[in-house]
Amino acid sequence: MTCPLCLTSPHPILWQDNFCRVVLLNDTDYPAYCRVELVEHVIEMTDLNHDDRVRTMMIVFAVEAAIREVIQPDKINLASLGNKTPHMHWHVIPRFEQDKHFPNSHWGEAVRTGESSNIPEITLTNLKEKIHRHAIYALHGHGN
Amino acid sequence: MTCPLCLTSPHPILWQDNFCRVVLLNDTDYPAYCRVELVEHVIEMTDLNHDDRVRTMMIVFAVEAAIREVIQPDKINLASLGNKTPHMHWHVIPRFEQDKHFPNSHWGEAVRTGESSNIPEITLTNLKEKIHRHAIYALHGHGN
Repeated sequence: MTCPLCLTSPHPILWQDNFCRVVLLNDTDYPAYCRVELVEHVIEMTDLNHDDRVRTMMIVFAVEAAIREVIQPDKINLASLGNKTPHMHWHVIPRFEQDKHFPNSHWGEAVRTGESSNIPEITLTNLKEKIHRHAIYALHGHGN
Repeated sequence: MTCPLCLTSPHPILWQDNFCRVVLLNDTDYPAYCRVELVEHVIEMTDLNHDDRVRTMMIVFAVEAAIREVIQPDKINLASLGNKTPHMHWHVIPRFEQDKHFPNSHWGEAVRTGESSNIPEITLTNLKEKIHRHAIYALHGHGN
């Protein structure tokens, strides 16, 4: 069976390099919900060497920083599970106190209807720009 | 209201330094389920500077490596949510294909009864020793 994350993403790609890509999940309950997916089929973080672990997390944190700047969520949730798709990917989920599952995990019980919407185009443009900026800064440091 | 993670942990501490502690949650559905808790009351990973982000994740990965060596789970789940307790902590959850929720998140729907047990004393001793070894190696490198 082909690993779906070894294929081109069906999701809009917000940023990518030869190591990983950041995609938007288009989850209407969580419009700015992003996923960081490694290009290589790696199963666990400890299958990576130290530098690649740091590189992965720098991109996860770049996405977190961008999301915080753009939509100011009440909390960020980060998770790498991979029980169904064991190809390293990180969920970066902006949470709001009035969202469908808060304070539960968004994989847990829904506690209200929540608001359902798509990400506005201007927010998406802003998010992409900020992910790019944080990612480049993380990877190449000051002055780039 | 006092933050419960700002207090001494009610859970057995498997390893600690002045930056964080690793505790065993004593979850009988997930006997080797550990949590890495920062000492300082920090809410998000991007509230930390680069070095402290790396330090946090090195300990998370040290716990992951130790758990993999000691009980060989089918998958490792990592998560930092903090919706209920916004004091930085990481869940490190060994998952097995026959556990209560697999392949769902352990915060999601249970799909079978699963096996319930405490961690055997010898496994706990082994886990502590290996977390210590991986943590010291991660923080201080070769020769320590």
